[in-house]
Amino acid sequence: MWDKLCIFIITTALVKSEYKYETKYFKVPLDHFGFQRKETFQIKYLVNDDFWDRGSGPIFFYTGNEGQIELFAQHTGFMWEAAEEFNAKLVFAEHRYYGTSMPFGNASLDNNNIGYLTSSQALADYADLVDFLQDHAVTPKYPVIAFGGSYGGMLAAYFRQKYPHLVAGAIAASAPIHMFPGMTPCDAYYRIVTSAFKIDGSQQCMSNIQNSWSTIRNFASNATNAEWLHKNWNLCDPLKNSSDVQQLLDFLQSAYQTLAMVNYPFPSDFLVPLPAYPVRVVCQYLNEKLYGNKLLEGIGKLLDTFTNYDKKSKCVDYKKGSDYGNLDASGWDYQSCTEMVMPMCTTGKHDMFEPQEWNFTKYSEDCYKRYNVYPLQDAARVTYGGDRLQAASNIVYSNGLKDPWAGGGVFNTVNESIETVLIIDGAHHLDLMPSNPADPSSVKIAREFHKTHIRRWIQKFRK
Amino acid sequence: MWDKLCIFIITTALVKSEYKYETKYFKVPLDHFGFQRKETFQIKYLVNDDFWDRGSGPIFFYTGNEGQIELFAQHTGFMWEAAEEFNAKLVFAEHRYYGTSMPFGNASLDNNNIGYLTSSQALADYADLVDFLQDHAVTPKYPVIAFGGSYGGMLAAYFRQKYPHLVAGAIAASAPIHMFPGMTPCDAYYRIVTSAFKIDGSQQCMSNIQNSWSTIRNFASNATNAEWLHKNWNLCDPLKNSSDVQQLLDFLQSAYQTLAMVNYPFPSDFLVPLPAYPVRVVCQYLNEKLYGNKLLEGIGKLLDTFTNYDKKSKCVDYKKGSDYGNLDASGWDYQSCTEMVMPMCTTGKHDMFEPQEWNFTKYSEDCYKRYNVYPLQDAARVTYGGDRLQAASNIVYSNGLKDPWAGGGVFNTVNESIETVLIIDGAHHLDLMPSNPADPSSVKIAREFHKTHIRRWIQKFRK
Repeated sequence: MWDKLCIFIITTALVKSEYKYETKYFKVPLDHFGFQRKETFQIKYLVNDDFWDRGSGPIFFYTGNEGQIELFAQHTGFMWEAAEEFNAKLVFAEHRYYGTSMPFGNASLDNNNIGYLTSSQALADYADLVDFLQDHAVTPKYPVIAFGGSYGGMLAAYFRQKYPHLVAGAIAASAPIHMFPGMTPCDAYYRIVTSAFKIDGSQQCMSNIQNSWSTIRNFASNATNAEWLHKNWNLCDPLKNSSDVQQLLDFLQSAYQTLAMVNYPFPSDFLVPLPAYPVRVVCQYLNEKLYGNKLLEGIGKLLDTFTNYDKKSKCVDYKKGSDYGNLDASGWDYQSCTEMVMPMCTTGKHDMFEPQEWNFTKYSEDCYKRYNVYPLQDAARVTYGGDRLQAASNIVYSNGLKDPWAGGGVFNTVNESIETVLIIDGAHHLDLMPSNPADPSSVKIAREFHKTHIRRWIQKFRK
Repeated sequence: MWDKLCIFIITTALVKSEYKYETKYFKVPLDHFGFQRKETFQIKYLVNDDFWDRGSGPIFFYTGNEGQIELFAQHTGFMWEAAEEFNAKLVFAEHRYYGTSMPFGNASLDNNNIGYLTSSQALADYADLVDFLQDHAVTPKYPVIAFGGSYGGMLAAYFRQKYPHLVAGAIAASAPIHMFPGMTPCDAYYRIVTSAFKIDGSQQCMSNIQNSWSTIRNFASNATNAEWLHKNWNLCDPLKNSSDVQQLLDFLQSAYQTLAMVNYPFPSDFLVPLPAYPVRVVCQYLNEKLYGNKLLEGIGKLLDTFTNYDKKSKCVDYKKGSDYGNLDASGWDYQSCTEMVMPMCTTGKHDMFEPQEWNFTKYSEDCYKRYNVYPLQDAARVTYGGDRLQAASNIVYSNGLKDPWAGGGVFNTVNESIETVLIIDGAHHLDLMPSNPADPSSVKIAREFHKTHIRRWIQKFRK
């Protein structure tokens, strides 16, 4: 269950005008770290040179994460706006095993093909691509700045850590670098979700949600009531048994975390379209102390706003869990079952959810059943350093205080070339979105901070 | 041919007393960067805790190179001497596909098994081992210092570059970090070999060798003369054709480079036993201007010293080329055919050899014939940065001015935590050998320099 919830969600602000790019392909080896498998395949990347100073302008390089790359190109407005200012070339590289960057076509996600879906292989793809963009020069000409949000932010930071000779600096937005075993309490994420509902909604809204779990569970145990919920909540499928009820509760939990993550100050069209400040909006139905049917009606309205804000949805498809939208959950699920083990739990005390402990043994067995692999819970720490970033340089880690993923964010600067920015009013990588009149000053300051450092890294590169 | 000559040679000073260690094994995955291949195997490592302060003493970690690890443990006297001073634990880790650290037993070097022999996989083995030695602690207790000479020196430096969270600093002795395409002129190596013969031998010695190639070639083209050489040079095999003659010349070229590399101030027992200052010794036969038979006699005496200094050899086995000694040439040949492409050439103008250009196309085709792989000449640069070391830290690169591999050494400090040491009187990683009364002051200073930095890195780790 937790691994399902652990999927990152790409938020996409409403983009009025589409950004334009050229779609290109770049040949990479299936395996960068061995020579036994000799297959190659194409990864997709998008390019825009409109603003580029071809003499020595920088390359702004988005390290694509778990989804098709067009999504990131269209919704990382900060890069487009900054490119104009810096006369930069824009490149958005698609992560292997996502979008159309498939090593084995439609069979890529099969258990006997998926094994080369790893962050190290993806970074090596990006390294080869950057080297190609520099014409394989021993002394490269163009300073490269890596950008990424969420898992893409982790990759941007890791790219600078592992290939500093190729990347002058990295903006790692909302990157849960520390969301690994032993580094962050497993309940951090859901505590922040809860806090978002308490602060942006109300104490009462949070309490009502906290009480709703047992209410729903008890209510739905009766067939007539279950049918009432089916009809009144406009569920696509009836609640036939306790497994269905659990799926509904999981869907609700996923909805709350999504609402917190994309609690932006403007309407946003992400996996589902939502109004500005969606947590505040959905909490309007839950700001009074509610019991029984009244509570269920409130939750029903919340669910309707979450799933049907654009009035295009026919019913609440609770059975698809968190696997909605444009991201490829299969790919990410596999990654979370191999090297991206992020422990998550709820206590019911400091959060508004039903208690669920982190059980690595069970998690591990589930992974083995699904993918025939056992997760390596130390892998990310051993490979990328966890919180031992003393030797890293030229990275800005930004985090929104309202973003649940900030629970695993980097907040301590360990040397003078690692910088952190806390965006008090920010949800999940708000700073990478296009600027908007509704932006709070904290995100405006963060974007200026990013640009100051990008400028510094470029100067240093040119010295 | 060049790839054959490109093999690194491990020099081993005469060690009076054997160092003692415990032999251990550590399980590693065949593939650290993918999950398709699920095999694991054991790598060997040697441990000595005699000097160790178990509270918080450092771990001195030798990043094993192309040979069985006992060789390095026995002949890296500097680590043993420094361990006593620093109360360090000593660990010598064997490189995968060498010694007994074989993933597929005796079949490991078969073309369908050898593909996981890469520097990245070896470094990942070492990373896992270090993490294990730290009890998988998120906050490790013991500062780890990496040591290595030659290819092992490259690995020590790369280990710090790629895993700075695991390694506090690295001593990279005689590491030809820049011996890759586009970074170093391809004739650098043989120019230094030539210079060693000119300076430690004489101008005349060098000239005689330079003239000997055509003399031998012309002389041996006649069957009677060829038989004369067979007898007088005590060759194991007769010179039946031009291919045999070429093998003999290749063997001589390999002998000259070896003599230059291990031109130590004390007798050393490396791949073949040699006296102190072997270049000076062999040049005594060539210090006068010699022609024809006299020149051939001189070269013959040189060959006798090189192959039979300990009077144990029955004949000169010129057909084995440079593939002598304890190193596993097969493994290294494969590495030089994949990621470790080090261009080498001779011009006959600035060196004492017959001209031979660097022909990557031919090199590449030869590799394909032998291993069914094409070498990636950009791989090492893209992966490890080549000469772009600005973001690296806590590495001392040492080079002996007399060492041909110094042609690809790092001499420029690019920031305040990268240090370089030039050992004027030093051959190939003399600084890693046990101290010796005949040591020139330059190597004594280098060893103190290393210790100063090791002390500094340990202090920084503990802060």
